[in-house]
Amino acid sequence: MPFATEARLRVRYAETDQMGVVYYANYLVWMEIGRVELCRALGFNYRDMEREDGIYLAVAEAQCRYRAPARYDDEVVVKTWVEEANRRMVTFGYELRTADADPGGSRVLATGHTRHVYVSRDFQRIPLPEKYHAMFGIGTAQTTV
Amino acid sequence: MPFATEARLRVRYAETDQMGVVYYANYLVWMEIGRVELCRALGFNYRDMEREDGIYLAVAEAQCRYRAPARYDDEVVVKTWVEEANRRMVTFGYELRTADADPGGSRVLATGHTRHVYVSRDFQRIPLPEKYHAMFGIGTAQTTV
Amino acid sequence: MPFATEARLRVRYAETDQMGVVYYANYLVWMEIGRVELCRALGFNYRDMEREDGIYLAVAEAQCRYRAPARYDDEVVVKTWVEEANRRMVTFGYELRTADADPGGSRVLATGHTRHVYVSRDFQRIPLPEKYHAMFGIGTAQTTV
Amino acid sequence: MPFATEARLRVRYAETDQMGVVYYANYLVWMEIGRVELCRALGFNYRDMEREDGIYLAVAEAQCRYRAPARYDDEVVVKTWVEEANRRMVTFGYELRTADADPGGSRVLATGHTRHVYVSRDFQRIPLPEKYHAMFGIGTAQTTV
Repeated sequence: MPFATEARLRVRYAETDQMGVVYYANYLVWMEIGRVELCRALGFNYRDMEREDGIYLAVAEAQCRYRAPARYDDEVVVKTWVEEANRRMVTFGYELRTADADPGGSRVLATGHTRHVYVSRDFQRIPLPEKYHAMFGIGTAQTTV
Repeated sequence: MPFATEARLRVRYAETDQMGVVYYANYLVWMEIGRVELCRALGFNYRDMEREDGIYLAVAEAQCRYRAPARYDDEVVVKTWVEEANRRMVTFGYELRTADADPGGSRVLATGHTRHVYVSRDFQRIPLPEKYHAMFGIGTAQTTV
Repeated sequence: MPFATEARLRVRYAETDQMGVVYYANYLVWMEIGRVELCRALGFNYRDMEREDGIYLAVAEAQCRYRAPARYDDEVVVKTWVEEANRRMVTFGYELRTADADPGGSRVLATGHTRHVYVSRDFQRIPLPEKYHAMFGIGTAQTTV
Repeated sequence: MPFATEARLRVRYAETDQMGVVYYANYLVWMEIGRVELCRALGFNYRDMEREDGIYLAVAEAQCRYRAPARYDDEVVVKTWVEEANRRMVTFGYELRTADADPGGSRVLATGHTRHVYVSRDFQRIPLPEKYHAMFGIGTAQTTV
């Protein structure tokens, strides 16, 4: 298992819909929270990557498999890891579940992944600068393609 | 009554919450749709105002009085007008109601206003260029302060 | 090609992010708009399906491949069709593109699908009632598995 | 000064818009986070108030004065208190600012209030049950009208 982080959040009323559960698009917002947290743990701030290096992680694909509904006020844990990375793209993997403290015990809410390409401010694809290689595990046995 | 436009939209599932009605913050999104439509009718595209003239309508205040809940799939009419405008700021007024075709007849959903200041890309306050004065009714008896 | 509908929408300011393009989770909101429109064209109102028959289309999976960024004020066309349907689930396919009137010509923004299971108000899986079979193309050569 | 709580959150990428700052409707989502936190500190869970007592705090009015833009990854503190409460309605007051740890020091982002009426599941106005009176400060010198 690759290095993974766990971000925690509490379901907002705004995130529910009239079915009484979380609206499905919000899981992608939560994945974003997960990967920002992973970046922080890997040694950089995604905000600075944009601001200082002019590198953006443009989403090329997102996929989510919904396993159990999340509900208002649930505490959600977003586990995130680098599934695959190279000089042209990175894929993050996610597992979302309720926290152990949840009355019903920890339930897996969803699993999924997002694939990103590196682009400049004007959306031209660029190779990932070397300083980020080790952080994404590029050039190590674990994740190189 | 000043010149007003009517923008129409249909309530999205994503906009409802577990109470079975539209979440209250979405009314501010609908007001945005209303004022963009008003700008278009007044003779300019808000997108171009930003892109070509570098002028942004930063929100300084928003107020909404909720009168009846909006529900999924309702057709909503956002009536918008310039309540007050001068070289430093503009206030838009709004009335949101369901369309006449609504089975229950047209109901007023909300009324409110948003006040904006003109800022540059880096958030410095700037006076509104003259080319927009007439469109906002500045310099006419109707809306000058 | 199966029967498809085209829903139109205009990109809201609220849907953009600081990268200057539409935030990726909003494409799933647009897909929802597309499938509601498709249901209407197939002969039923999704709202009534929930209200009157107590049937909900719970999302089991969503996938989106992002091909070009959508921008503020773009007019977007959401083409939607039934990719596969049976008594236990339905898969909708989507193609999102800018309208022909777009200055840059029509660009494909994204393609994707969502898979749904039929559930009752309390999230128990139920078989799709017969009255909906023909509308989803179940029992015809075209879409039966 | 009445009893107040401070909820903390970090600005999500999804909450920014193409102006590079937080979209204005999201401040109302943050106010919701603030008042849920206040309820918890006052001794009850808003989720249970809905579920067990069938009481909903329907928003009757919302007002927000925007003082400084919030940006991606900012840590935001939502200070919330009961501004006024009686058997028919409650008004919450809010002050949103960046956390002290913010490089630029703590800035006030916004101030505002929301006014709510108590309603049943079917949106009929109901008086607030006695068990909540003391928590909202009803019947004490401080907040009774």
